[in-house]
Amino acid sequence: MKDLAECDFAIIGLGLMGGSLGAALKARRICRRIRGMARRESVIQRAKELGAIDEGSCDLNDAVAQADVVVLATPVRAMLELIPKLGEMLPSGCILLDLGSTKTEVVRTMESLPAHIEPIGGHPIAGKETSGIEALDAELFQNATFVLTPLARTGSETIALVQELVRSLGAKPLLLSPERHDRLVAATSHLPYLASIALVAMAQAGAAEDPALWDLTAGGFRDMSRLAASNVNMSLDILLTNRENILSRLDALMRHLGRTRSALYEGDEDSLRQLLSVAREARRTRYP
Amino acid sequence: MKDLAECDFAIIGLGLMGGSLGAALKARRICRRIRGMARRESVIQRAKELGAIDEGSCDLNDAVAQADVVVLATPVRAMLELIPKLGEMLPSGCILLDLGSTKTEVVRTMESLPAHIEPIGGHPIAGKETSGIEALDAELFQNATFVLTPLARTGSETIALVQELVRSLGAKPLLLSPERHDRLVAATSHLPYLASIALVAMAQAGAAEDPALWDLTAGGFRDMSRLAASNVNMSLDILLTNRENILSRLDALMRHLGRTRSALYEGDEDSLRQLLSVAREARRTRYP
Repeated sequence: MKDLAECDFAIIGLGLMGGSLGAALKARRICRRIRGMARRESVIQRAKELGAIDEGSCDLNDAVAQADVVVLATPVRAMLELIPKLGEMLPSGCILLDLGSTKTEVVRTMESLPAHIEPIGGHPIAGKETSGIEALDAELFQNATFVLTPLARTGSETIALVQELVRSLGAKPLLLSPERHDRLVAATSHLPYLASIALVAMAQAGAAEDPALWDLTAGGFRDMSRLAASNVNMSLDILLTNRENILSRLDALMRHLGRTRSALYEGDEDSLRQLLSVAREARRTRYP
Repeated sequence: MKDLAECDFAIIGLGLMGGSLGAALKARRICRRIRGMARRESVIQRAKELGAIDEGSCDLNDAVAQADVVVLATPVRAMLELIPKLGEMLPSGCILLDLGSTKTEVVRTMESLPAHIEPIGGHPIAGKETSGIEALDAELFQNATFVLTPLARTGSETIALVQELVRSLGAKPLLLSPERHDRLVAATSHLPYLASIALVAMAQAGAAEDPALWDLTAGGFRDMSRLAASNVNMSLDILLTNRENILSRLDALMRHLGRTRSALYEGDEDSLRQLLSVAREARRTRYP
C-alpha cells in the first residue's frame, strides 16, 4: 500500500474546495508535493502565495503526469468532461478522487476509466457561500463528514488510503453508494439552497413595491438568504446532475407548505401547533 | 415632555425580549426604576439576579400602578387580552408601548384604550431562536431597526420620547403604519420561518427512511433550520395575527418554487441560471 506521506498530489481546480484541500494538506504535512491546475496562471500564482500548492500548471497533462493521487475540485459538469480525458493521462495505479457535490453521474463516468486507474468518488460535507481561491480555509474539513463512494472496482487499499487521507484532514469518512448520497443531499443541501433562492426572490419582489422591506430584515433573514449567494455555475451543475432527487424533494416541500397554508387559512390552531412543534423538536434534537 | 431619566418603567413579560429590554435599560442607565411582571415568581427572581429589573410582581395592577412607561413583552395574543385590562390600571399620561412581532391587531386593540393613556406600537427587528429570561442579551437592540407604529391619537411628545428611548438603546427608530409593517415582515420574517419549518420537516421525513441523512448536514442546513427552533407559542401568535399577509406571501413563494421546478424538470438551463443569478445578486447587494 502507498504511504500517504510519500504521495505526490495533483489538485485540478483551485477554488474554495481545491484551495482549502491544498492548504490543509500542506498545513498538516500530509503528502509529499502538491501540484495545482487552474485555467488561469494568476490563480495558480495566488494559490502558491496562500500556501495551497507547491507548484502549478495550466496544462492538465503536465499537472497530473507524476501524480500518485489526483483530486478533482471543479464544478461537477467540468468533472464529467475531464474524467474521460484523464484516462489517457494518469500514471498506472494513480488514485482519482473527486470532491463533487453530487456523486451518481461522476461515479458513472469514472466507471469507463482504464483499469490501471483507481477511481473513487468523494464529497466533503462542508462549504461556504463564498467561492474562489481567496476564500480558502485550511480548517474547512475539520470535523466534517467526508462521504466516499467507491466503485465496484475500487481496490480495498485505495479505499483504506483515501480513508486515511480523510482522517488526516480532520474529517470523518462515511462510505455510501452514490445514489444514496445524492438522495440524502437533495434534502440537506439542494432543497435548502432552492428555498433560500425563493425567499430572496420573494423579498426582492416585495422590496420593489416597498424599499423599506430591507430595513425589516434581521439575523433570521440573513441566515435564510446566505445560501442564495452561492456560486451559480457550481449550483447549476449540482441541480442538473441531481434532478430526479431534487424534484422529488421539492414536491415534498411544496406539499408540506401546502398543508401549512391550509391550516393557516382555516385558522386550524391545533394542526399548526403540531406542524411547528414537530419541526422544532427535530431541530432541537439535532442541534441541542 | 417627560424626562426619560426620570421615568419609572414596567415591563410585562420577562422572556427574551422583556429581559433584554430591562437589561439594556439598566446597563445604559436610561430610566429611573424598572418593575417587571411575570406569572412566575421564579422568573422575577431570575430577572433581578440577571440585572434586568429592579423589582417585580406577579400582579399586573401592582406592576403598572406607578409606571410612566409600560412595555408589553408577551406573545402577541396575550397582549390582545392584556391591553383592555390595562385601560383601568394605568396612571394618567402613562405611555403604553408593545414589542410585538405583528402590529395591526395590537394597534387596533390599543385604539379602545381610555383617552388618558398614550399608546404606541413597537417592534424591534431583532431576535434569537432561543427564548426565556436566560436568553436575555443587553446588546440585542444594538443597531437594530426598531419599528414604531403610532396611533392617530398618539401625541407628538410621546412619539418623540419613545424615539429617544429607541436611540438610547442603540437602535434605529422607523415610523410605519401597522399594516405596512405587517406586510413587510411577512416576507422578511414569517415566510423564512415557515420555510425553515418545512425544510426541517422534510429532512426529518427523509431521516426516518435513512438516518444517515443527519450526517450529511453542514452549515447550510444548520442556518436554514435555525428559525424552526423558535418558540412555538410566540410563533403561532405571529402567524394567526398576520394571516392574510402570510397567505399572500406563501402563495408567491410557492409560485416561485413552481417556476424553479418547471425549469429543472425541463432541464431549462437558461431559465434556471436566470432565477439563481437574480437572487444571488439581490442577496449580495444587501449583504456585500
